[in-house]
Amino acid sequence: MKIKIGIAGYGNLGKGVESAIHYSDDMELVAVFTRRNPDDVKTLTGAPVYDLDKISEWKDRIDVVILCGGSANDLPTQTPELAKYFTVIDSFDTHARIPEHFSNVDEVCRANNTLGIISVGWDPGLFSLNRLLGQAILPNGSDYTFWGRGVSQGHSDAVRRVPGVKDARQYTIPVESALAAVREGKNPVLTTREKHIRECFVVAEEGADLQAIEDTIKTMPNYFADYDTIVHFIDQEEFNRDHLGIPHGGVVIRSGKTGMDGDRNHVVEFKITLDSNPEFTASVLVAYARAAFRMRSEGTVGCKTVFDIAPAYLHPSSPEEQRKNLL
Amino acid sequence: MKIKIGIAGYGNLGKGVESAIHYSDDMELVAVFTRRNPDDVKTLTGAPVYDLDKISEWKDRIDVVILCGGSANDLPTQTPELAKYFTVIDSFDTHARIPEHFSNVDEVCRANNTLGIISVGWDPGLFSLNRLLGQAILPNGSDYTFWGRGVSQGHSDAVRRVPGVKDARQYTIPVESALAAVREGKNPVLTTREKHIRECFVVAEEGADLQAIEDTIKTMPNYFADYDTIVHFIDQEEFNRDHLGIPHGGVVIRSGKTGMDGDRNHVVEFKITLDSNPEFTASVLVAYARAAFRMRSEGTVGCKTVFDIAPAYLHPSSPEEQRKNLL
Repeated sequence: MKIKIGIAGYGNLGKGVESAIHYSDDMELVAVFTRRNPDDVKTLTGAPVYDLDKISEWKDRIDVVILCGGSANDLPTQTPELAKYFTVIDSFDTHARIPEHFSNVDEVCRANNTLGIISVGWDPGLFSLNRLLGQAILPNGSDYTFWGRGVSQGHSDAVRRVPGVKDARQYTIPVESALAAVREGKNPVLTTREKHIRECFVVAEEGADLQAIEDTIKTMPNYFADYDTIVHFIDQEEFNRDHLGIPHGGVVIRSGKTGMDGDRNHVVEFKITLDSNPEFTASVLVAYARAAFRMRSEGTVGCKTVFDIAPAYLHPSSPEEQRKNLL
Repeated sequence: MKIKIGIAGYGNLGKGVESAIHYSDDMELVAVFTRRNPDDVKTLTGAPVYDLDKISEWKDRIDVVILCGGSANDLPTQTPELAKYFTVIDSFDTHARIPEHFSNVDEVCRANNTLGIISVGWDPGLFSLNRLLGQAILPNGSDYTFWGRGVSQGHSDAVRRVPGVKDARQYTIPVESALAAVREGKNPVLTTREKHIRECFVVAEEGADLQAIEDTIKTMPNYFADYDTIVHFIDQEEFNRDHLGIPHGGVVIRSGKTGMDGDRNHVVEFKITLDSNPEFTASVLVAYARAAFRMRSEGTVGCKTVFDIAPAYLHPSSPEEQRKNLL
């Protein structure tokens, strides 16, 4: 009996989930649900597409719904709504609003005897896990999260809104010297500017004032003013050749001291390098969907996060095999 | 109310646990138990020392006993024995015998309504966790574990047994080119020799045949014959200055593909660099002792491993604070 999955929302993340399920032997994709006209959506695997408004009719035919909408407008309402009918999992990533989202989903899950896992992916998600582990194991220390090198969608959008800009891609890049100091156990105190560089590749409209565009980007509050920002103007051909991918990555480092005199240092580093941010996030979602199914089968209800999931639930093999082969 | 901890066995690991508890606000060390004459053992913090044979008298005064004996001779019998009376946790690290040890501890725990967590540390332990996570998230991939640069106690002992050797330290070192190939996502197939180098620092007895010592080391079956081994002869002064520490470290890397065509690569790396192997292992044990106490308080019994522990149990702060500050 395979775990029956439904996908709600079919953008890059939804496609990544579809592909990850396709390569997971213990799962099957039952259906994709969309707010668009289902007839206009063609899936990668040929999975059927239905109207999201009618998803509740599938209540008894789906074990876990993976929500693949956006954190700004979709998930705050969709996750609690679908949790009325299904075990759900999402990648809600607006860090400041997680407690509120948790509370909303938890209330619906408890009222309807369902299970919801929120904020699954790499940050929040695997990075959160490593921040928690680092603090728990080395309480006398500091932790650092660096993002990149990778595409920031929000910053790319901000550059595209600058007058005279036709297309743009913004990469967030950790400052190598800061990373090196952290890895050496120096526990530096780092400002925003000292941690990350922002690099923009911009296709300008014909005749646009390049200097004005560059100045507008570099002084943009919240997005760029607090960073050292590099702006490259390139043509559309180069842009299409080199900048259509969605790579990302980053690193969480915990550096801490042990011993009665606190004189021995330890550095714990978790690092990811991703060719495709949405496909990797999708892969994390699918592993946690397996956990959601198993935990719900054992009777667990309510809202959970990566902090509440015992790792054994994530791996397809049995506890005996895990101990034998992986421990 | 602090978590009341007992330590069974007082070598380097036991001292590391004592120090980690000293710096954990939610724990207190009740007593250290030893097989030596308690009067001969002086603890770092002044914690009282008692005869290990009488530990069962402390049944109602200790929440968790952390076993700090060796995997070869102590833990296989001590952990099941103490699990009759206490919630226990050990760092049993003989990988091949984990299923047997698990089964022994599980039986005693279930018969006596206690909880036991075995094989906690970094390998087995945090490295196991990362092997499991990597496979669960990127099923289409390969994983690699590299150890070092660090002191291998077993290999150092083997060198010390060579005739003419007065003192010796062996370091296991990952081969940089192999690590680089793995990090680049090349998924190389690596032999034993291609993964690690073994470097020995040897103090020879006066007048010893250095060439004979070097040949004996390099051709020693199981320990060195399958590796490229470097032997340095140094004097006792240099040895004492540079080689009395117990540093270690290592890395677990999962490299895997996603997408319908499997053409996007992702590399997930977990790396540790430790000034003191026993003090870091002790710190991991103490965090999992917190989990053991909390899980037992909720009614959990039986044998568990790192795979069965939800991360939230490891961190001293509340679930609400964890979600707010760490997720």
